[in-house]
Amino acid sequence: MNFKAIILAAGKGTRMKSKNPKVVHKVCGKEMVNHVIDISNKSGVNDVVVILGHGSETVKNVIPEKTIVVMQTEQLGTGHAVKMAKDTINDDDTIVVLCGDTPLIEEETLKKLFAYHLENEYMATVLTTKVDDPTGYGRVIRDEEGNFARIVEQKDANAEELAVNEINSGIYCFKGDKLKEALDLLDNNNAQGEYYLTDTMKIIKDRGSKVGAFVGATIEELMGVNSRVQLSQAEAIMRKRINQRHMDNGVTIINPENTYIESNVEIGKDTIIEPGVMLKGNTVIGEECTIGMNSSITNSTIGNFTEVKISTIIDSTVGEHTTVGPYAYLRPKSNVGSHVKIGDFVEVKNANIGDYSKASHLSYIGDADVGKDVNIGCGVVFVNYDGKNKFRSVVEDGAFIGSNSNLVAPVHVQHKGYIATGSTITDDVPDGALAIARQRQVVKEGWVAKKEARDAQKENNK
Amino acid sequence: MNFKAIILAAGKGTRMKSKNPKVVHKVCGKEMVNHVIDISNKSGVNDVVVILGHGSETVKNVIPEKTIVVMQTEQLGTGHAVKMAKDTINDDDTIVVLCGDTPLIEEETLKKLFAYHLENEYMATVLTTKVDDPTGYGRVIRDEEGNFARIVEQKDANAEELAVNEINSGIYCFKGDKLKEALDLLDNNNAQGEYYLTDTMKIIKDRGSKVGAFVGATIEELMGVNSRVQLSQAEAIMRKRINQRHMDNGVTIINPENTYIESNVEIGKDTIIEPGVMLKGNTVIGEECTIGMNSSITNSTIGNFTEVKISTIIDSTVGEHTTVGPYAYLRPKSNVGSHVKIGDFVEVKNANIGDYSKASHLSYIGDADVGKDVNIGCGVVFVNYDGKNKFRSVVEDGAFIGSNSNLVAPVHVQHKGYIATGSTITDDVPDGALAIARQRQVVKEGWVAKKEARDAQKENNK
Amino acid sequence: MNFKAIILAAGKGTRMKSKNPKVVHKVCGKEMVNHVIDISNKSGVNDVVVILGHGSETVKNVIPEKTIVVMQTEQLGTGHAVKMAKDTINDDDTIVVLCGDTPLIEEETLKKLFAYHLENEYMATVLTTKVDDPTGYGRVIRDEEGNFARIVEQKDANAEELAVNEINSGIYCFKGDKLKEALDLLDNNNAQGEYYLTDTMKIIKDRGSKVGAFVGATIEELMGVNSRVQLSQAEAIMRKRINQRHMDNGVTIINPENTYIESNVEIGKDTIIEPGVMLKGNTVIGEECTIGMNSSITNSTIGNFTEVKISTIIDSTVGEHTTVGPYAYLRPKSNVGSHVKIGDFVEVKNANIGDYSKASHLSYIGDADVGKDVNIGCGVVFVNYDGKNKFRSVVEDGAFIGSNSNLVAPVHVQHKGYIATGSTITDDVPDGALAIARQRQVVKEGWVAKKEARDAQKENNK
Repeated sequence: MNFKAIILAAGKGTRMKSKNPKVVHKVCGKEMVNHVIDISNKSGVNDVVVILGHGSETVKNVIPEKTIVVMQTEQLGTGHAVKMAKDTINDDDTIVVLCGDTPLIEEETLKKLFAYHLENEYMATVLTTKVDDPTGYGRVIRDEEGNFARIVEQKDANAEELAVNEINSGIYCFKGDKLKEALDLLDNNNAQGEYYLTDTMKIIKDRGSKVGAFVGATIEELMGVNSRVQLSQAEAIMRKRINQRHMDNGVTIINPENTYIESNVEIGKDTIIEPGVMLKGNTVIGEECTIGMNSSITNSTIGNFTEVKISTIIDSTVGEHTTVGPYAYLRPKSNVGSHVKIGDFVEVKNANIGDYSKASHLSYIGDADVGKDVNIGCGVVFVNYDGKNKFRSVVEDGAFIGSNSNLVAPVHVQHKGYIATGSTITDDVPDGALAIARQRQVVKEGWVAKKEARDAQKENNK
Repeated sequence: MNFKAIILAAGKGTRMKSKNPKVVHKVCGKEMVNHVIDISNKSGVNDVVVILGHGSETVKNVIPEKTIVVMQTEQLGTGHAVKMAKDTINDDDTIVVLCGDTPLIEEETLKKLFAYHLENEYMATVLTTKVDDPTGYGRVIRDEEGNFARIVEQKDANAEELAVNEINSGIYCFKGDKLKEALDLLDNNNAQGEYYLTDTMKIIKDRGSKVGAFVGATIEELMGVNSRVQLSQAEAIMRKRINQRHMDNGVTIINPENTYIESNVEIGKDTIIEPGVMLKGNTVIGEECTIGMNSSITNSTIGNFTEVKISTIIDSTVGEHTTVGPYAYLRPKSNVGSHVKIGDFVEVKNANIGDYSKASHLSYIGDADVGKDVNIGCGVVFVNYDGKNKFRSVVEDGAFIGSNSNLVAPVHVQHKGYIATGSTITDDVPDGALAIARQRQVVKEGWVAKKEARDAQKENNK
Repeated sequence: MNFKAIILAAGKGTRMKSKNPKVVHKVCGKEMVNHVIDISNKSGVNDVVVILGHGSETVKNVIPEKTIVVMQTEQLGTGHAVKMAKDTINDDDTIVVLCGDTPLIEEETLKKLFAYHLENEYMATVLTTKVDDPTGYGRVIRDEEGNFARIVEQKDANAEELAVNEINSGIYCFKGDKLKEALDLLDNNNAQGEYYLTDTMKIIKDRGSKVGAFVGATIEELMGVNSRVQLSQAEAIMRKRINQRHMDNGVTIINPENTYIESNVEIGKDTIIEPGVMLKGNTVIGEECTIGMNSSITNSTIGNFTEVKISTIIDSTVGEHTTVGPYAYLRPKSNVGSHVKIGDFVEVKNANIGDYSKASHLSYIGDADVGKDVNIGCGVVFVNYDGKNKFRSVVEDGAFIGSNSNLVAPVHVQHKGYIATGSTITDDVPDGALAIARQRQVVKEGWVAKKEARDAQKENNK
């Protein structure tokens, strides 16, 4: 047996008012269709088939390469969409049909649905939920024994049926061969002229197979996103879920409604996340860290006991007991050691910085290998670009780089080399040597009074 | 016929605990009284009369010049306030009376009220709303045919009247002459000794004119702001409304509860607004932009496909496909081209920056005209001030400004001029020339060991 | 009579998933146990006894020194915990028993409880509250006269008792001698094998003393924090309370749900606090200030009419009519005067800056005394560290420090001293003198063409 998901993702989503198809809009940093694909995979699905229509190229660009893509060039209903995928269905497959615009469906729910479907040997099972107000939804009608009888749409329901509060989720499991038979028998003899997947339940039942209905979802999980307002609502729900998970794991989040963590992020115990923080991609935060307000960390690894204050970190690693910020910017390939201080208005890019080194303020360390115990003064620039090429510099352990000095790459400052304040360094600095490149100070007494006289004269001449 | 609004704005608002009168407190960046004036104008009003009392000078400073101002020096009730404006009312005016502290009233509501008032040929019409809990409000009592009968205050209502859930909004339409007649007949024979505008409805009806009641507002719209807590609540409601409008237009807003957009801002389709962003004044954002977390943009225009990250932009324009930030600051009169990079810790002020130019980090570009394809290194300062006067510099296309160099204005760097790192440039640089102004590097071997010996000596001498 | 609080704080709080004991986790910047201690003190308590168990050393490190600490090494119930403190109880003490994990209890509630307890001459009084859904709580049963009869736990309650909606808060007042007698009589003959403090109420009553129940708390106040999710909920409630208090005092808070003010902070009238702001410790903000979005101010004093934009201020003072930021960083011991401008990307540390002085951009002013009317250019560095020692510099009134210059401490710039752009200043500058330390500019015509040829040659040789 093979588990296969068929994900309906052909819709345009007119109400999104977007040039992109609906399912590529992101919730908590991931496209809706990829949420559904990822949850399918986590719940045990082996193969994913995505039905594409509007903006199919855009969707193809974001889904995993191994996804099977089927085109639905006309939009003739959910039954028609699944029909397009008929060739991908094997007789003994277990098929789950999902929607690409319901990103909140949960792994546990799908797992339970699959178990229910298989354990009861149903040929078709619809996932249902019970709600306070079923208005607008298809009702799931059961017989006197409580077995699935049929699904009735709102507009076709009588008073008794309207009172039923168990609704159709739009998510189904099928045995492959039964689904294929039913798809062949679907018709579009209805007001909309569409082929409805819902009808397959009746067809399979009428042909004598066991079909079931599993009350297993919450209404929240089934929320379909059709507008930007709904997109923001789905985002809020998923944000809450992710943040709750981290809090359950021992992370303090000061204001979970204003903390933005993507689903793959890992955070160690007793770390504190302040408001306005964004943690994105495959970021891993250690234990007992403080991630200060409004920091943004993407695809980076932060060691234990480290404090990041109001800073931006991208594609980098930071060691333990290090402080970053406030207002620091670690660009990709920054590899910052432990017990390091990267202070305010400091940019690091494609650079290694050894343990116990400091760059406290207003510096740029780009394309460099900086050793341990190095002090990088204020206003220092690693000049890595001559307008044509980029070069790399090396600063060895214990060096001191004076303030407002420039290291014009490629340059090598050896162990304990000392650069005088305000020097532009173009040549290597030997071990323990001072390098200085500046003019001596000259004082011109009385100059200010003369300048003031000149300025006044100019004013008069105007 | 002339449409005229009379806006009651004389109150002090004691509970605001402010030195300023209540109606100048801002909701979503605009004074409450100006919200009411703007909505009046949008709904078709030709002239606006504002009744001022407490802090009238402060209010006058913020309202449009053409507003007619009438003083109410004593606070003797709403009827008394409108009476002060009697001379501004013409017989065939249509008068709408509004409160300056209800900033949430909507244009559509007023338009419907006016239509209802005029189509039914009422001489007076009160705007009403139905609520779940009418406690505290004046009840609108109708006769058996459903016509307006009278308004009964909470304290005067019998049990039957208390059960009525249609309430008085405090907003009225009048025919000018009828209102004037009624104002003359108002008395203050009541417990408070005040003249109530409410009484005019009864007076006009008793004198044989048709009066109506239009159920057309939501309770939200009628919210009066009497305290800072209510101010924050009105702000939250208006914030939600504004953000919903942009989402309906195809803008993604990650967290609408934490996104602050003033009412005049325009945003193009498929632009993403991250949390904590403030968009103020007459800002226009293009399509498919990303406005990153915590950016603040005021009175500026941002082109399509541009990304702004954690930056502040004031009174400036930015082209297309440009990136700004993180941590950049565009001060007034910055005119940044397309495909430009303004990086971290860069300030631009009163400067033009041509297409494809870059200022990637830690620079100040003030009072300058920078051409296309210019590279401005790290730590560059456009020195525009000598302590007395400001001057302007010009950098032509293709120039390269080395890191930590200074351009002492006025200076002119011609086409492809090249400034060496660490140079202070005081004279013009010809086309294709190198300008250099720095001392050569000198190396003193063994200097660090000597310094350490000296430092140790000093320690010992202490 | 002596008022004494016994605070139960021995629990581990397993669900917190923390290496620290539960009561040291912070709500709005203060450890939960310290909230309870502070509120006890404010409500009139003279001595505080804290019962510690898990992680007692960690708790001891954060509570006030004068707190009496009692150890409970085994966790045998609330009665057992109080029993550990028996030696600290004097016969005529008034004892209030509180929980260290209910940080939301209010001063007014405790004061009313004490008054009720003393005025009615009760020997024991339990604080109670009425709730809509009492499920899970101990019910407070009263006799026909409405007097306290007994407390029944959920599991022991009959149908009639289950319907009672008055619940036990877990907070009690006792006369010292009666409590001690009751503690001696407590047993652990119950399913859990624990000593319950609740039982003391019955013991004291049965021995003929008057005991009472005071309906005086809200359910919100009684919220116990057992998980990080509850910690964030307690934080939200306290945040709302604190912000409401400031709004009631005349402070405008744009979005109270996203504004983080610790309990000791003071803010003047007509000050506006923008979203994302954090005000911590003993910060005092003046009147009519604007604290702009995402600013963080800790233990600092800000004068009237001052504007702080997107900046971080720690342990510093700022005068009146001064502007700070955006993106400025005032580190400890910064003392900034009035009418000063500290602009973007400027760090100040351990420095005095006189009135009307300006540091507009990209500068570091560390360990310095800067006078009045001083202009500090862009990119200026106060070089205070030579790799071994830190030194202090002085800049007198009216001085002009040119851009990208360095003041190598210790250095003294006298009145109206003028430092030329790009100079590294190592010697004192006399009154009214110009100090210059840079090389003259040299121009090499045609250099760029030669460089391009060289670069092309290198490319070819690759």
